[in-house]
Amino acid sequence: MATHVEHLEMTGHIVDSLLLPKVLDAILSRGGRYNIETLRLGQRQDDASFVRIEVRADTAEQLEAILAEVHPHGAVPAQTGDGRTAPADMDGAFPDGFYCSTNFRTQVRLNGEWIDVEDQEMDCGIVVDSEGAAARCVPMTGVKKGDRVLVGRTGTRVLPPEAEMRKHELFEFMASPVSSERPKAVSVREIAHAMRKTRAAGDKVLAVLGPAVVHTGGSELVAQLVRDGLINVLFAGNALATHDMEQALYGTSLGVSLTHGLPTDEGHEHHLRTINSIRRLGGIREAVKAGKLASGIMFECVTRNVPFVLAGSIRDDGPLPEVVTDALAAQDAMRKLIPGVGFCLMVATTLHSIAVGNLLPAWVKVACVDISPATVTKLMDRGSTQTVGIVSDAEPFLRSLVAELGKTGAA
Amino acid sequence: MATHVEHLEMTGHIVDSLLLPKVLDAILSRGGRYNIETLRLGQRQDDASFVRIEVRADTAEQLEAILAEVHPHGAVPAQTGDGRTAPADMDGAFPDGFYCSTNFRTQVRLNGEWIDVEDQEMDCGIVVDSEGAAARCVPMTGVKKGDRVLVGRTGTRVLPPEAEMRKHELFEFMASPVSSERPKAVSVREIAHAMRKTRAAGDKVLAVLGPAVVHTGGSELVAQLVRDGLINVLFAGNALATHDMEQALYGTSLGVSLTHGLPTDEGHEHHLRTINSIRRLGGIREAVKAGKLASGIMFECVTRNVPFVLAGSIRDDGPLPEVVTDALAAQDAMRKLIPGVGFCLMVATTLHSIAVGNLLPAWVKVACVDISPATVTKLMDRGSTQTVGIVSDAEPFLRSLVAELGKTGAA
Amino acid sequence: MATHVEHLEMTGHIVDSLLLPKVLDAILSRGGRYNIETLRLGQRQDDASFVRIEVRADTAEQLEAILAEVHPHGAVPAQTGDGRTAPADMDGAFPDGFYCSTNFRTQVRLNGEWIDVEDQEMDCGIVVDSEGAAARCVPMTGVKKGDRVLVGRTGTRVLPPEAEMRKHELFEFMASPVSSERPKAVSVREIAHAMRKTRAAGDKVLAVLGPAVVHTGGSELVAQLVRDGLINVLFAGNALATHDMEQALYGTSLGVSLTHGLPTDEGHEHHLRTINSIRRLGGIREAVKAGKLASGIMFECVTRNVPFVLAGSIRDDGPLPEVVTDALAAQDAMRKLIPGVGFCLMVATTLHSIAVGNLLPAWVKVACVDISPATVTKLMDRGSTQTVGIVSDAEPFLRSLVAELGKTGAA
Amino acid sequence: MATHVEHLEMTGHIVDSLLLPKVLDAILSRGGRYNIETLRLGQRQDDASFVRIEVRADTAEQLEAILAEVHPHGAVPAQTGDGRTAPADMDGAFPDGFYCSTNFRTQVRLNGEWIDVEDQEMDCGIVVDSEGAAARCVPMTGVKKGDRVLVGRTGTRVLPPEAEMRKHELFEFMASPVSSERPKAVSVREIAHAMRKTRAAGDKVLAVLGPAVVHTGGSELVAQLVRDGLINVLFAGNALATHDMEQALYGTSLGVSLTHGLPTDEGHEHHLRTINSIRRLGGIREAVKAGKLASGIMFECVTRNVPFVLAGSIRDDGPLPEVVTDALAAQDAMRKLIPGVGFCLMVATTLHSIAVGNLLPAWVKVACVDISPATVTKLMDRGSTQTVGIVSDAEPFLRSLVAELGKTGAA
Repeated sequence: MATHVEHLEMTGHIVDSLLLPKVLDAILSRGGRYNIETLRLGQRQDDASFVRIEVRADTAEQLEAILAEVHPHGAVPAQTGDGRTAPADMDGAFPDGFYCSTNFRTQVRLNGEWIDVEDQEMDCGIVVDSEGAAARCVPMTGVKKGDRVLVGRTGTRVLPPEAEMRKHELFEFMASPVSSERPKAVSVREIAHAMRKTRAAGDKVLAVLGPAVVHTGGSELVAQLVRDGLINVLFAGNALATHDMEQALYGTSLGVSLTHGLPTDEGHEHHLRTINSIRRLGGIREAVKAGKLASGIMFECVTRNVPFVLAGSIRDDGPLPEVVTDALAAQDAMRKLIPGVGFCLMVATTLHSIAVGNLLPAWVKVACVDISPATVTKLMDRGSTQTVGIVSDAEPFLRSLVAELGKTGAA
Repeated sequence: MATHVEHLEMTGHIVDSLLLPKVLDAILSRGGRYNIETLRLGQRQDDASFVRIEVRADTAEQLEAILAEVHPHGAVPAQTGDGRTAPADMDGAFPDGFYCSTNFRTQVRLNGEWIDVEDQEMDCGIVVDSEGAAARCVPMTGVKKGDRVLVGRTGTRVLPPEAEMRKHELFEFMASPVSSERPKAVSVREIAHAMRKTRAAGDKVLAVLGPAVVHTGGSELVAQLVRDGLINVLFAGNALATHDMEQALYGTSLGVSLTHGLPTDEGHEHHLRTINSIRRLGGIREAVKAGKLASGIMFECVTRNVPFVLAGSIRDDGPLPEVVTDALAAQDAMRKLIPGVGFCLMVATTLHSIAVGNLLPAWVKVACVDISPATVTKLMDRGSTQTVGIVSDAEPFLRSLVAELGKTGAA
Repeated sequence: MATHVEHLEMTGHIVDSLLLPKVLDAILSRGGRYNIETLRLGQRQDDASFVRIEVRADTAEQLEAILAEVHPHGAVPAQTGDGRTAPADMDGAFPDGFYCSTNFRTQVRLNGEWIDVEDQEMDCGIVVDSEGAAARCVPMTGVKKGDRVLVGRTGTRVLPPEAEMRKHELFEFMASPVSSERPKAVSVREIAHAMRKTRAAGDKVLAVLGPAVVHTGGSELVAQLVRDGLINVLFAGNALATHDMEQALYGTSLGVSLTHGLPTDEGHEHHLRTINSIRRLGGIREAVKAGKLASGIMFECVTRNVPFVLAGSIRDDGPLPEVVTDALAAQDAMRKLIPGVGFCLMVATTLHSIAVGNLLPAWVKVACVDISPATVTKLMDRGSTQTVGIVSDAEPFLRSLVAELGKTGAA
Repeated sequence: MATHVEHLEMTGHIVDSLLLPKVLDAILSRGGRYNIETLRLGQRQDDASFVRIEVRADTAEQLEAILAEVHPHGAVPAQTGDGRTAPADMDGAFPDGFYCSTNFRTQVRLNGEWIDVEDQEMDCGIVVDSEGAAARCVPMTGVKKGDRVLVGRTGTRVLPPEAEMRKHELFEFMASPVSSERPKAVSVREIAHAMRKTRAAGDKVLAVLGPAVVHTGGSELVAQLVRDGLINVLFAGNALATHDMEQALYGTSLGVSLTHGLPTDEGHEHHLRTINSIRRLGGIREAVKAGKLASGIMFECVTRNVPFVLAGSIRDDGPLPEVVTDALAAQDAMRKLIPGVGFCLMVATTLHSIAVGNLLPAWVKVACVDISPATVTKLMDRGSTQTVGIVSDAEPFLRSLVAELGKTGAA
């Protein structure tokens, strides 16, 4: 039987970041064998290390499988040429064999030089410009016939995220197991710290909110964060906005009084009447202008010029005029607001959390707060590994967060 | 202080159905007082009862609140005129004070006669035709300027669902508390019975499925049900169809092998390559025709002419060509397939379950299977009271269901 | 076929409390037939109603099944004699056919008079004293040979709980479906109100706490409630006490720092060293006396003379000297402290919540706070129907509760 | 500032097992610095590696913290003397500074030789025999005044579990994130394989079962496994045994019929009457002998001489005569049956799963099946890292398992 061989190289904090062990493990898992040809270990923790590994496999397919597996850990063939491209032969689909992006920082070798890929996003293709001087992630529906689409892994390399390499930082404390049994005041303090730091760095804080924020009574708390400049972009759906405005107009959320907690008569109709009223006025901004909407999250966003995307879903009633009912258009609207985001706080929404997790590059830290551990597990399963999960209840969590942020003053 | 008075009447199995007690309770809860003027109790369980109640309240608002509250329990003012309408003054919004529909059977009094409302659906308005001879539910976006829209409750009555009136039937066994600690074989048997009965009556079984059906390994089981004519309509999303076809093409679901359960190399790319392949072929039907897709749920649906709606969502990759990306268009596509549905089986999807629950009239029985009790609780909270919840795991549940249905032969 | 007949009577708010409808429903469900012979309906809400129902069944067994079913709803045969007893023929077991108690208020007819049963508790037998002048609930292990044990339902009646009869009270707002999507500030306010009201009435507040109270960082909050006289009895286990004292001694809980949230070196050993230290000192009280334990829940309980029961479990390490390792002894220790309890707050424990729920009479209101809806559902499934469930996170919930109670001053 | 230095050595598959990276990471996390003095890397995957690391810290405390942290990863000071002991100065408590055991294989250096610790169990002390020739784990309550108890880490070393070192084995497929979205047929197949393999090796399969096994209808399935010799030891509680026998005697579980799923009349009393009957007969074995108990899990255990421990808990009614009501006695009863156990299947019990997890050495593989992800997360959080979690429903899971085991014949 012929043996198929490749030589891989890795540089950086490859031992204590666990990248080298993962690569060795992957080789064995796929049935390959390795021989460490060179290992220059950074003797102290500041030094970068270098390794050169000979990989052997019984078949070309097996070798290919190994190379695919180790690629996102930053292992690159010792000798690689330029990235190869193929022209898209139709709109809205990539050529076969297209390179499938991760959300990690990625570089493509073009004309012998390593170029950073722009608009990094998972599950996209990479389109190289006509001069071969730039490359960017493009979703499947965005490809046009004739685009030069990267195919294969040749001439590509992934720079594994900082988070994996040195973890003694913000958020380390909230390690992987997603449990409710964690000291909550610490989580709150760290998130408050991350929000302030993000603002101090001139970056934006993105909030992704589900309707339970309002149902549990958290509207005014979020409104406070918007007022204090601590939420700078909002992604949500028809339900969050509707129930927030239902509270402003009727004092209820899904018909349940937020004052005494009882379902009110006709309360189940309030959300529909709220939507109808806003539609009659022409929209949320118009409702604020007309003085009909004077409190709550949406009011503050309009008043403070905090941009928002309300993405539509099939369970929407109405919907509100601002809701982007087309899923692709909604994704694009969100993409436009992501540059500049330094921190993302997700509260009480599985749908929007996963959707936004799909769009964010791996270096934007995410805190995902949900009362169900399953939501956080799903988010991580789908590749948003930069996420820390906090299993907690929306309103009490937000109340603690606002109190913590209030201690030292806002941005 | 003036006293405001109204007289209400109810007919039917109002005592053992709990409708009368609920009405009396509602009057007291809202601060009113009652006087039972007439009560003719059906002495035996087959006899209908009749009650006439005088309701008193201190203010007009209080009285109005009481009447709103008791309306869905079937209590109607003793003297009522025809339903009142107002012309829609714009497209896409109802006039103020519009009647807000429930999913219960509803009648409107027009020209002195009680007319059944068509297309019954919750959270809609009711539009009366120009001759005043028919009425139907219309969603907010469907209203056109000039439509005669029902306003107020005058001349309307709700016929509370059979399920409340006599419960010694299918599904009674699965009472309200949503717990995993129930005998599962019984649930399976009852659902199998409901599916067979629905088919025998010439009605359709609607399946609403989430991607965990595929992730847990249930594709072939669902395919079997489609083949056997036991699923007649399918509502799902991009993910269910993608992972089902990913399994057919690659043997994986979200990159996890369904044979050995291990993540495969490049497996995380499989779903994207699957979508790309189907887009290149022009769609699912074309993929079947071209012989590229030869097994799984989508294959069987295409082959057996089982209509499906794949509704888009913001977390979709791709999506597949058949996916209806606009939420309102997807709702309309589902509405078209609902008439004739006699039973609905929802498995492992919160988003689609709530969306479909919003569209179904109260007399279509629903079984909602999910591993998380929260999904079923949410569905019931949002008004789909005809739902029985089964807290169980998708694949093992489907396996038991297929085995149970196999015992006595399919439709 | 012979027909078996019985006449039942009910008195009270039997219509709007849903008791009569439930009885009629039960008769039909068990295959019986009914004839309402007399119905005197309280025309206004203050009036009691009276009904006399003829029940018919095809077999004696069927009739018996119906009578068993309607008994806890307060339906009593029109003619009943004195309660019948049989002597216990051995220690630790009842005679066959023993009357099995509920947690509802119960009366026994002795010498022609209705006597209140003492020590009401579910799943016990009822022992009548030698003079036939008193009756009390006795657990199975408490019965002694020769005890006069009530057998059959003759001469017994259950007074259905107030909660069912008139619900417009404290806690009504938190109706049955156990969902996290409720306004939390309202729940907090109502519980605070119940605690203050209980204290004002001279009754005791019982806290039943799980270790997640400490893990999430809530020790100091509970300590505050003890200091303020708002918790008067504590039931917990080895883990709660250990982790509370681990925090006092090491600043960690299960080895996780409550200051910075990181696992500390050797932290996993802290709980064991804590137990060892307390055992070496002779116990918790001795540790306080020796000045070794100076903060936290257990410190406050010792200092404020708040009695506590630490009930053992098979997952205990150590345990602490105060832990009652025998389950029956622990139940008895708890029983002794229950008289005088007017309100019970359960936080973050399934085991202890269900155990205490078993011991409490139905008229002691219970609020059960847990991040998992399943805990509350289990509690209700097992008969503790007086429980309201709040799906929330321990520490943030307690933080809000302490803040709410602080607003108006403590007891 | 003085620098404190220690030299550590590690041997084995320290790179691809992630042990070396973890040690380096731990040093940095605790503020230390390292210098890799020697690294002989196994060039091929079969070769063991060796590393010698110089660790530096600013204070003695910091150095001690680092050494504590790296100890369970197998890092041992280059020069170490014999293990040091101190005499226990009282019964039931260790001397201060006692060595706290893990569930990993551990060795103690006595008289210059490394000795295996017997009865390995986490959270115990280690007692050395009088001749210094043997050492074993002893729980805190088992220590007697005068026992020679190991103190400090000197002369001890931990052999990290195989599972960490080479993962390409049984169970690898079910990696850490605890999600319900996994192919269930694969989990079932692997567990079946583990059970058969355990039997083939002459080891015992231990089942730890909660009452939901019976409530969901799984009694007969477990009984089948006992009959087929595939369950050899049973740990459970009063509830599992009671409901199993309630089903045998009444056909119900917690009063719910397992045939039609409906609560039966007086059904809530069945479990109490079951316990009473068994108590009257003298016990479960006597009930089998008397012919009163003729089916179900307990019947099969008695008939097949499968030993069982029914451990008491404070939520027990009764309890059954066989129930060990003292928690410490129950732990000891379980400890006696653990030697020889090669595989442990836990289904639907948090309490017993964690209790048994505490007792098992790390090399006994555990599969924990529960419908709630939180149960598995808790188990892992508490140190039972050899556990694979399967989020699934008890009865359907067991049904699939029995079917899978039936395919190839039983042991």
